[in-house]
This record gives sequence, C-alpha cells and structure tokens, in this order.
Amino acid sequence: MEDIDIAFLTEDKVKADILIEGLPGIGQVGKLVVEHMIEELGAEQIVDIYSIYLPPQVLIEPGGVARMPSNEIYLWKGEEISIAFLVGDFQSTSNEGHYLLTDAYLDIAEELGVKRVYTLGGFGVGHLVEEPRVLGAVNDERLIEEVTEAGGVMTGDEPGGIVGAAGLLLGLSAERNMEGICLMGETSGYLVDPKSAREVLLVLARLVGIEIDPTRLTEHATEMEKIIARYEEMERGKEDESLNYIG
Amino acid sequence: MEDIDIAFLTEDKVKADILIEGLPGIGQVGKLVVEHMIEELGAEQIVDIYSIYLPPQVLIEPGGVARMPSNEIYLWKGEEISIAFLVGDFQSTSNEGHYLLTDAYLDIAEELGVKRVYTLGGFGVGHLVEEPRVLGAVNDERLIEEVTEAGGVMTGDEPGGIVGAAGLLLGLSAERNMEGICLMGETSGYLVDPKSAREVLLVLARLVGIEIDPTRLTEHATEMEKIIARYEEMERGKEDESLNYIG
Amino acid sequence: MEDIDIAFLTEDKVKADILIEGLPGIGQVGKLVVEHMIEELGAEQIVDIYSIYLPPQVLIEPGGVARMPSNEIYLWKGEEISIAFLVGDFQSTSNEGHYLLTDAYLDIAEELGVKRVYTLGGFGVGHLVEEPRVLGAVNDERLIEEVTEAGGVMTGDEPGGIVGAAGLLLGLSAERNMEGICLMGETSGYLVDPKSAREVLLVLARLVGIEIDPTRLTEHATEMEKIIARYEEMERGKEDESLNYIG
Amino acid sequence: MEDIDIAFLTEDKVKADILIEGLPGIGQVGKLVVEHMIEELGAEQIVDIYSIYLPPQVLIEPGGVARMPSNEIYLWKGEEISIAFLVGDFQSTSNEGHYLLTDAYLDIAEELGVKRVYTLGGFGVGHLVEEPRVLGAVNDERLIEEVTEAGGVMTGDEPGGIVGAAGLLLGLSAERNMEGICLMGETSGYLVDPKSAREVLLVLARLVGIEIDPTRLTEHATEMEKIIARYEEMERGKEDESLNYIG
Repeated sequence: MEDIDIAFLTEDKVKADILIEGLPGIGQVGKLVVEHMIEELGAEQIVDIYSIYLPPQVLIEPGGVARMPSNEIYLWKGEEISIAFLVGDFQSTSNEGHYLLTDAYLDIAEELGVKRVYTLGGFGVGHLVEEPRVLGAVNDERLIEEVTEAGGVMTGDEPGGIVGAAGLLLGLSAERNMEGICLMGETSGYLVDPKSAREVLLVLARLVGIEIDPTRLTEHATEMEKIIARYEEMERGKEDESLNYIG
Repeated sequence: MEDIDIAFLTEDKVKADILIEGLPGIGQVGKLVVEHMIEELGAEQIVDIYSIYLPPQVLIEPGGVARMPSNEIYLWKGEEISIAFLVGDFQSTSNEGHYLLTDAYLDIAEELGVKRVYTLGGFGVGHLVEEPRVLGAVNDERLIEEVTEAGGVMTGDEPGGIVGAAGLLLGLSAERNMEGICLMGETSGYLVDPKSAREVLLVLARLVGIEIDPTRLTEHATEMEKIIARYEEMERGKEDESLNYIG
Repeated sequence: MEDIDIAFLTEDKVKADILIEGLPGIGQVGKLVVEHMIEELGAEQIVDIYSIYLPPQVLIEPGGVARMPSNEIYLWKGEEISIAFLVGDFQSTSNEGHYLLTDAYLDIAEELGVKRVYTLGGFGVGHLVEEPRVLGAVNDERLIEEVTEAGGVMTGDEPGGIVGAAGLLLGLSAERNMEGICLMGETSGYLVDPKSAREVLLVLARLVGIEIDPTRLTEHATEMEKIIARYEEMERGKEDESLNYIG
Repeated sequence: MEDIDIAFLTEDKVKADILIEGLPGIGQVGKLVVEHMIEELGAEQIVDIYSIYLPPQVLIEPGGVARMPSNEIYLWKGEEISIAFLVGDFQSTSNEGHYLLTDAYLDIAEELGVKRVYTLGGFGVGHLVEEPRVLGAVNDERLIEEVTEAGGVMTGDEPGGIVGAAGLLLGLSAERNMEGICLMGETSGYLVDPKSAREVLLVLARLVGIEIDPTRLTEHATEMEKIIARYEEMERGKEDESLNYIG
C-alpha cells in the first residue's frame, strides 16, 4: 500500500485546461459548487485517490455497502475548454499529509496539462450573511483584474491565510507555473451554505467562461433559508415562553 | 525492528477460507465473540503481530510476567471450512498506523488464501438495549441478501462510517477481491457487552455455517445483567435517600 | 516535493562569517531584531526554505496575492564581516520537524562557511518589564565573557531550557564546531515587544562589532507604550465606572 | 542528522554483564537510583544518545552553557560484574519514538554483551506511602523467585501495564534472549521520591549482588520528609486560621 494511491480509471489520454477544487471545508461551500457543476455538466470520474492521510474509516452508502474514503478527479470536455474537478470525502488528518496530498493533486494536474487551478471554499464570518460576497486570492498579481471583473472582491486588507488544500493548491501550483485563483464565499461557518455556494458559482462561471444553471443550488438555498427561519421562530418561541414563565 | 513485525509460529503450510476479526472496540463486542469462538473451537495461534503503532508499553500477566502488546492470528480447521481469527490487545495509536496495520493483516489473509473477511464490533447507541439488533455492512452489494437472511439488519439509512480496523478491513479487502462483511451488535457503549456479543455470534454462525455453543457468552451476559440491576437498585436507593432527606 | 526544500536564489558563491536567527517566538523579539537589521543594512535574500513541517496554508499578502509560508536567509556583506540572517513566517508544527529544519538551517550555514551562530528570542516573565535585561546562553563556556562584556546577563541560575529553533541551533551548532550565542530579551510574553528587541539589538551590535541605528525600533517601542498606556487608562476607567455603579 | 544518533565516547572494547535503566518517570524513582549508583560506584560515561524523538530544545546548565538533551550510557567494571547504566534527560515525545529509542538502547546492550536488563521506576498510588513496597515484573517466569527472595513483590494481581522505556525494555529484551526485571517503588506520584528510590536500591543491590551505600539517598529522603512535614504544618495552619475566621 502506497501512502498516497492514485488510480486512473481510464486508459484514454485525458487532458484538461483547468482544475477546479471543491474538497470539504467551511460551510461545504467549495464542495457544493463542484458537485453541482459535475452534475450539471455531466462530468465523468477519471481518477480515484486513496491515502493513509485520510481518516482511518470506511463510509457506509445507503443500503449498507461500505467504501473507502477517497478524493476523486472528474473530467468534462467542453467545446472550448476541458475541466478537471477535484472533489471528495475528506481533507488530510495531519499537517504533513496536507502538503503531500496537495503535491499529489498537482502531479495529476500536471499530467493532465492543467494551466490554471481554481480552489473554492467558504470564508467564515461568524454570523448569518444576507448577501455573501465572493472573496478572491490569487497566486500571481496579473490575475487580480480578472477576478474583480468577474465580481470577486480581493482579500488582503489584513494579514490572513488560507488553510488546507484550497490554500496549498494556490501556493504550490505557482511553483509549477500554473495560475491559481481561490474564491471564497462568505458564510456563517455554522451551516452548510448553498446560498454562498451559488454566489461562488456565479463568479466562477464568469471566470471560466461557461454557463451553468444555478437553479438547483438556488432551490437548495431556499430550503436552507426555510429551515433557518423555522429554527429562529422556535428560538423566539422559547424566549416568549421563558418571558411568560418569569412574568 | 520493523514498523510492523509479523512472526509466523508454525512452519506448516497454513490455509484459511475466511478471516474473522475481533479487535478491541466499542463494548468489546468483537473481541468477546472471537475469543469465545477461539476457545469453543480450540483454534491455535499461528501468527504474532508486533508494531510501533501499538501503545508503547508492556502488559503484565497475572503473576507478574510482562509481555509485549500484540495482535494475533489463530487458525481452526473444520471439515468444511478453515477459519483464521484476528484478535489482540490494541488498535493503532495513530491514523496512519490504522491503515498500515490493516494492510499488514490483509497481507497475511492473502497469504492464507482467505476469500472472505468478517469484521465484528459494537454499535454504540448511548443507552442500554434490551434486544440488541445486529447491524450489517458489506463491501459488495451481492452480500446483502446473505446478511439479512442470517438475521442481520443492513445499516445505511443515514450517512455513517465504521472507524478503525473493522472498517478499514472491510474497505481495503475489496481492493484485494475479498468479500467483506461487518457485523455490529447494538450496545450502550458504556460497558463490556456479552449480550450484544451473543447476538453477533448467532448471526455470524449462521453466515459461516458452523455451530458454536453460546452458553458461556449467555452466562457472562446474565452476570452482567445482575451487576447492572444491582447498580440500578443502588442508584434508586440513593434517590430515595435524597427524597427522605428533602422530605 | 522534498520534506524540506532549500532554494538558493543566487548562483554567486556566497559566504558569511556569522548567522543571526530571528524566527517567530515569544514577543516576536528575535524577528523584530533581525527584520530591523535586514532593513537597516539592506541585506539581500539568498535562500528560500519551504517544508511540510511548516503549517499547511498559504499567506495572503495585502492586495490578495497568496504565497507559501517559508523561512529565508538574507546576506549582508560589510567590510569587516559578512552576515547571514535567518527569518521567516513560522517555526515547525511538529517536534521532529524542529530538529529536521534546524539541521537544514545548519547545512546552509556550513555551506556559507559560518563560524558563529547568534539566536535571538524573548524570555517571557509574565508581567510588563520596565527595563528588560538581555539574557544570554552559549554553547561553549569560552563565550561567556564576551556576552557579559557586551551587556548580556548569563542565564543558568535555575534549571531551564530554550525550546524551538533558537535552542536547537545553539545545541546542534556545537556538534559542527560552530560557536553559538543565544540572546533573549525579557518580555511580558503577551505582546509584540519592540522595546525588548531594542535591548537585544544593542547587545548584539556590540558582540558583532557593527553599528545599527535603533531609531525605528525605539519609535516602534514608543508607539507600543502609548497603546499600552491608553489600554491601561481604559481599564482604570472601567474600574472607576464599576466603582461608581456600586457606589 | 540521524533520527537516533549513538556516539561511543571510547574506542576501548567495552563489555557489560547487565544494563540498569533509570530514565525520568514517576517520582523520578528510577533516575534517582541510577544516578546514585553511578556516583557511588564512580561509573564512567561511554555513550551519548541524541534523537529527534526527544523534546526539541536545549538545556541550560548553571552558568549559562547550553547542551542538547541526551540519554547516556555509563559503565562500571567491578571484580565480579560489569554494569552499564542508562540514564538521561527525557523519554520520547511520541509513541513510535518510544519503540525506536528502546530498540536503539537494546542494540547498544547487545553490542556490550548484556545478558540481563533491570528497569527501574515509580509506581504511583496517589497518596503518600509510609513504607513503600518494591513491585516487580519480569520477562520470564523463571526470574520471579529471584525477585521475591530479594524483597520484591510481584505485580500482576490485576491487569496492568508499564508504559515507556521501563516497560518496552522489559518486553523487547525478551526477543533478544535477555532476561528482564522491572522494579517499581511505590510512590505518591506527586513528588520526587528518594525514599521510594532507596527501597528500590536495596532490592536491586541484593539482586545484582553488590554493595551500595544508600546514605545519601537516605539523607535526601530525610530532607524531603522535612519539606513535606513543614508543608503539612502550613496546611494545618491554614485550616486553623479558617476555623478561627469562621468561629
């Protein structure tokens, strides 16, 4: 068993112009965007990545069939652009593993001929956000204008960092002469956030130059808002009760 | 010293059709089942496994003799089936170690010619269970029917995972073309649970097609129930006292 | 990707007589001193050090450009002495990484021909210090006199240790026959402390035999004192209010 | 730099019949015994052991000279027996490091021709002990009689373990066909305990068949008892005061 095991599922010579990463993270924002795109575009899986740096467990699918946790690469060939997507179950459980897994992702990207990497995530602000902005970070200043023209807001007003695969892919892709853009949707940090994901999707689609129907994300966001509203009503109910009780 | 040291105790050419794992875990359910089977069948130890991924200590046997913590393989040859059992002192102390140890267990299984792996464990529910169900998970959907016919209930209604050797053996055996079935007895999670172990044993025996007398597990379960009853009585006694005191 | 990746940025044959380390630590004392010296002297960067033992993240520069965390070597050639400086973003995230990174720093030092290593840091005392002393430790008793003549106070009255790169560089340089001197400015341990850094700079400059204008550190220290004074006033204000409230 | 670096300080061909380990641990019991023996017998250091598994720091000696943390082997040649002693600053900081360091200690022991290993430690009981017993554990049941005849009490009435070097040396020496005896002095676990160390020394000296003057340990124990008595008096004083205050 290798520390990181990369299994190509196809023998075709596969190529991609860009890689879009959406591994689990704050508000599952990146994961929601990439899973939405894979489904809307009908991208197909081409790589399975297993590793001792992922949690030591199996995942049980509905019905009771177990499978190893893995991260995966999907491919979609459009007329003007080919896109590889990186999604999956987990990020690394160790600091060193984050570096080693990201390096493996970039080995694959290089093999696919990827010239630009997009990494997606949530930016936790600690409270519900009515109109989430999409914050951007890049690995080359020449990319800033592109991001802001697509509706992104550059971060960097105060010192900060981006932890995990979304950050390291940005940093380590530069050393391989790939362009790197990170888009982070503002989100509370407490909840899965399809609303934030929708905003990221809109900026990303403009940057990539493809059209993706956001309807299902919008629907998902509407559902979440109903759940939140119901929850807030319950909380208010409790407060009223406790007021009655005191009064 | 190897990171994982596998010592065969016999020079005979040993073969096994199936491997049954019962390493320490929730309610010690798996361990109780496998230790019971080893004793009832008179299986003999054929392998010792030492590793730097096990806790850094020795264990003191009654009388004061120390021994290294180890996991072990036992073998029983029946007329129709040969069974290897994996039991032992500990699971890995690190995430990576879980993967590397499980891989070593499967190397041995492959060498023995094992075609199917059973992994046993407890499924913690957080309260005492009157009639513990035996939950099943498999690594190939063709195995589902067998499990349910033997009395197991397939898991998978909600997302979940199986952590540690019981999970990883299920997942990693699939890559080696071995069938994998995990049986988990419902248990509180607070106590060693021979009652849950007994239920797992009954389902397992049907699946394997052998007869194992569960009497000693039943007796052990009866003792445990007495201990629990006495403890609950004590607790009620305390409540009564405190009522008296208040009253 | 190497576990530790050392990239020389120049092809010139570079030499240095001494190495001065100022990685992040208590009160950022060492970092403040070395960054001040690099700027005052106009030292130039000659080495970039990346490693899987640094935190798994990128850092976002003002404007939104991300870069990998790294530690760096700068070089300044004076008429009488050439100085290499070790500064950077982080220390190791793991115990073993501390050893391996320090070993790599010393490989570079040896290649540069370094004969003496100065390591700088803060010595946390848990309260604000009016006149911070500069405590010294050495890796050879013949260095003690030099330190005390320059105004340092030898530590060692009670058992103690120096953790991280500042300590290990002192210890491991001895095995390579380099002299090692550690200077630690007393500091509260709660705040970035340019005042303590200024004192360390003065002792260090005497030891190295160069002149460095401390004005900017002094200004920085004056600002910090104003901030602290304002904060203490606010705290007193709060106390007065609460007295009023009670009264 | 090696993960574990073993430096012999002599070029003589050195041999030892037994190894006595006293690394830091509960109540520093083992360390006190071995340091006492080294001093009384005038044993000389023959090996330095450095490792990335020890804490990443230097230790400051009185006067201000730093040295790397290390563990050390000392040698004493008597007329009838040669003894190697293992003492030092720290145990491993990681689980895996405990195994790897112990393996390195036993490599040295094997090179010295050691036939038996004694490991010493404290056995924490959670309260002050008037007459500490010396508990024994062995790696071969044939050694039990020797231990009990020397005044040791075999452990093993209830399941237990011995963690760290004292335990692993016992377990791993068996695989190298060395005899192993662990002696643990009962101790509170809160304080350095020379009284417990004295009892361990007496049993050990009988086992080894040498005479060691325990006077200095006895004096150290008397001092500690005075400190404890003074502390208890102070505590009683506080109680009296608070009684006065209430009354």
